Order: sequence, then structure tokens, then C-alpha cells
Amino acid sequence: MEIINRVTRMASVARELRAQGQTIGFVPTMGALHEGHLSLMAKARAMCDKVVASVFVNPTQFGANEDLSRYPHDLARDAELAFTKEVDYIFAPSPEDMYPNGFTSYITVEGLSERLEGASRPGHFRGVATVVAKLFNIVHPHFAFFGRKDAQQVIILKRMVKDLAMDVEIVVGLTVREEDGLALSSRNVYLPADERKAALVLRRALDKCRQLYNGGDRDCARLVLAMRAIIEAEPLARLDYVAITDIANLEQITTIPHLRPTLVSLAVYIGKTRLIDNIVLNGEL
Amino acid sequence: MEIINRVTRMASVARELRAQGQTIGFVPTMGALHEGHLSLMAKARAMCDKVVASVFVNPTQFGANEDLSRYPHDLARDAELAFTKEVDYIFAPSPEDMYPNGFTSYITVEGLSERLEGASRPGHFRGVATVVAKLFNIVHPHFAFFGRKDAQQVIILKRMVKDLAMDVEIVVGLTVREEDGLALSSRNVYLPADERKAALVLRRALDKCRQLYNGGDRDCARLVLAMRAIIEAEPLARLDYVAITDIANLEQITTIPHLRPTLVSLAVYIGKTRLIDNIVLNGEL
Repeated sequence: MEIINRVTRMASVARELRAQGQTIGFVPTMGALHEGHLSLMAKARAMCDKVVASVFVNPTQFGANEDLSRYPHDLARDAELAFTKEVDYIFAPSPEDMYPNGFTSYITVEGLSERLEGASRPGHFRGVATVVAKLFNIVHPHFAFFGRKDAQQVIILKRMVKDLAMDVEIVVGLTVREEDGLALSSRNVYLPADERKAALVLRRALDKCRQLYNGGDRDCARLVLAMRAIIEAEPLARLDYVAITDIANLEQITTIPHLRPTLVSLAVYIGKTRLIDNIVLNGEL
Repeated sequence: MEIINRVTRMASVARELRAQGQTIGFVPTMGALHEGHLSLMAKARAMCDKVVASVFVNPTQFGANEDLSRYPHDLARDAELAFTKEVDYIFAPSPEDMYPNGFTSYITVEGLSERLEGASRPGHFRGVATVVAKLFNIVHPHFAFFGRKDAQQVIILKRMVKDLAMDVEIVVGLTVREEDGLALSSRNVYLPADERKAALVLRRALDKCRQLYNGGDRDCARLVLAMRAIIEAEPLARLDYVAITDIANLEQITTIPHLRPTLVSLAVYIGKTRLIDNIVLNGEL
């Protein structure tokens, strides 16, 4: 495994791999790797000749009051974990190399980026789309792997790839969870024991929704109310949003349709830590 | 020469050429080809194994009140002209194929896109950057050729390529002019005889600027005034803007510096037709 820090070096390695006819699998991460990331690396390993994982805490996707400065960093640990999944290259560029002086080009997936997470985190998906497009241009992957926990991110990046005819296929990995159901997130390390316990409300709310849905309820207002009630009953939790949306346009719907895939997603503050989770009804991302 | 209409076909041809190790030169155009375009094709022919020229009147770079509907179209004529320059592929996609249902991803080169042409044509460079990035993703060129007459476009696209690490080199061709000095433009066909004559004010104003500059004048206010006076003396002309700007950031300057390349650009309505032209002092784009 090689750790690459320079954009130019990564681009030339990727060009060389392409020239040799090797398929490149790419797992973009912000480091602080957990089993969710590792499952994507394993998937990439199984599908591709060479696997590249990036570790880059992308400043442009954090808002001014968000946790950029305290986001966990430990490249040595991340590299060790990636090594266990037989990743071939870790790409860990500096912010200065990714955003040189005078940087001013951004990709926006309009509409989709302003809803759900985007409404709470203005500019977040502009930062995500831009850095992912740039990483794609550097790494030249055939396949790029993202987790379903960030469902809106997947939907936006698939749209971007299609709209701009990017020559890469997005592959989605299932959300990996702790035994008690908490979705893995690099932000879980922020949670002290009481908050860690309280964080289970996200999964409990989604379970409730699926249970009502399985029982035949298709009324979104009622499903949302039931989920809100669960979040509000937890004193350490503060609901940011819970929404039931069409998967194609992320617009809220009133009734869950028969066949169209439907995203049930929520964001909840547990203390000062903001967590997200989701389920998909009637299909997949 | 092959004429390709489908995005998928063009992408697979380009992939095949890349796999064969051929260098691809790309000349994006909106058709209505003139000697300016043809000189870019000749340059591409000399530098590359295969030459692709696109003919696509890109709707997203036209404003609501601009000339999209009357912009000249004649693919058969364009193909014949491109054939004389030994172009290998004409890529002429439909708007529906380039902008499928639900298209919502755009590239913006912020700051640079809002000045000069961008101030007069809001959204123009968002459309340009987006379509060029998409064409690059489809055609996979090693080199892409643009004319210096669209100086701001060149500056913006170079910035985009650098910022987003696109794997292509932008090559700039000199502005081609009629014998009397009028810069070639597909829009020149809109001009009746009296306006065609009046259109020479653009070149006369720029010549005046260079003459004063060569005489030692470095004061931008004075140079701009001299150019304005020439435009305003022509009854069929109406000045949109004339500006002297730093080439890197397109911000207006007060004194022409000793060594930094400086763009002198203007846009003038001749009757209803909007024409642009420019010169570069102290260097090149």
C-alpha cells in the first residue's frame, strides 16, 4: 500500500493504472474510518483490480459553525485499517493542494442540494459535489463507493454523474450499524455514554415508521408524527428534521406510493452532535 | 469523417481512441463555422492523432432575451468545412441528449463569471462552463482548442480545468480577422452593409488603445475614455462596456502594470447585434 499526498502524483498513478487496463475502485472518505468505510473498501476490493481510498477532511462541505476543527484526524490509524482491507493506495492530499490559491470553481446540483440536509447545512452539498468531482478527475475511477447512510449525498452524486456524463459508476453500500442499531458515523466518537444511549432514538423512530408502514399505513403526516413523538420523548435529543420524500427529487410527499422508492430520513441533535439516519421503502437508492 | 449524434456513441468512440493510445484534440463550437473555428481545427490537426469538433448551440449559455432562436444552424455546411480541415469526428448532439429530463447540475467559476461579459449576460458562463465540462467528459480530449476572441471564456475555462483537476490542456488560438480588421464571429452574418461598416469601431477603438499604450500612456481611465469616444462617434454603435482588467482576476485596474498581462476588452451593440473584441497587453492569455 502506498500513501500518496500530492494531487499530481495521484493523477499520474491513476493514468498509469488506466493505461495498463486495470479497473480502479475508489472509496472517498474524510478519514476517521469505521466499519461502514471498511465495508465499502471490501466491496471495492471484490469488484476492482486496484483500490484507492482518499482521506480528506474537505473544508468546503462544512458550515461556519460546524465541527471542521474538531473532526477526528488520525491518518496512521486510517492507513492501518485500510491496509487490512487490501487497499492499494491511500490518497491524503492537503487542503492547499486541493484548493490552490484563487480556487473558485464549484459544482452545484440545484434543487436536490437545497432540501433535507441541504436546508440545515447550506453549501454542504456544493462542497461535496465539487470535491467528489475533483477527486474523480484525479483518481479516474471506474467505480466509486458511497454508503447509504448518506442517502441524499448518493442521490446528488448520481445525479451529477449522469448530468455531466462523468465516466464512473456510483456503487452504494448498505448502512453498517452497531449491534444496538446505531448507524456507524465518525461523529459517534463525540458522544458520552448517556448521549450514546439517547442516540438510539434515530433507529427507534425509523423502526416505528417501518412497522406502521408494514401494518399498511401510507399516510406520511401520521408516520412523521409517530417518529417525532419518539424523538421528542428523549430529553437529550433535539429533532432537526424528519421527512418522507420521493427518492428522485427529494420532495416531500403526502402518501407513500405503491411502487416508487421512498426515502424516510431524519437528523437529530444528541447534545451538540448532529446525527443522521434513513431507511428506504419500496426499493433501493 | 464520422458525424456522431449520440452522447453514448461519442463517449464510446473516445474511450476506444484513448485505449488505442491516440491523442484526442477537441474543438467545441456552436456551428456557423468561420475561419476562426477552422484555424483551431487546423491547430488540433497538427497537434493530435484524432480531431473531434462539436457542433452544439448550447441553450444554457443564452439569456432569455438573446439570440438562441435565430442563431445560425447549418450542420451540412459545417461538416463540409470541418472535412476540409481533416476533422475525424463531428459531434452534434441534440439538446435533449445533452440536457436529459431532470438535469440540474451546473459548474460555476465564481467571481470571474460575474465580470465583463458575465455582468451583461448573467448565467452565460455558468452555461459555458457546464457544457464544456460535460463535453470534456464525453470526448475525453488531451487538448481542447478555444479562440482568443472569447478571452474571458478562455480565462474561465482554464481556471475551471485547474481548479477541478480536469485532465485536459486548453490551447488558445489567435483571433482571426477580416482584412479590414473585424474579428470573425458567427454573429457577423446578422449585420447589413451599413452595420458591417460601423462594426469596425471595435477594432478602431482597440487600435487606439494600443497606439496610446505604445506611446507610453498607462492610465486606464484615459485609455478607456479614448476608446469610448471612438465608439460614441459611430451612430449605429452603442457601447455595452469597455474595460481594462488584470488577466488573472478580471478586476479593473487603474494603471497598466509593467509586466502583468492586461486584457482590454469591449462589447458593442451594432444595431441589435452584440459584438465583442479584445487585445492583450504585456503578454498573452
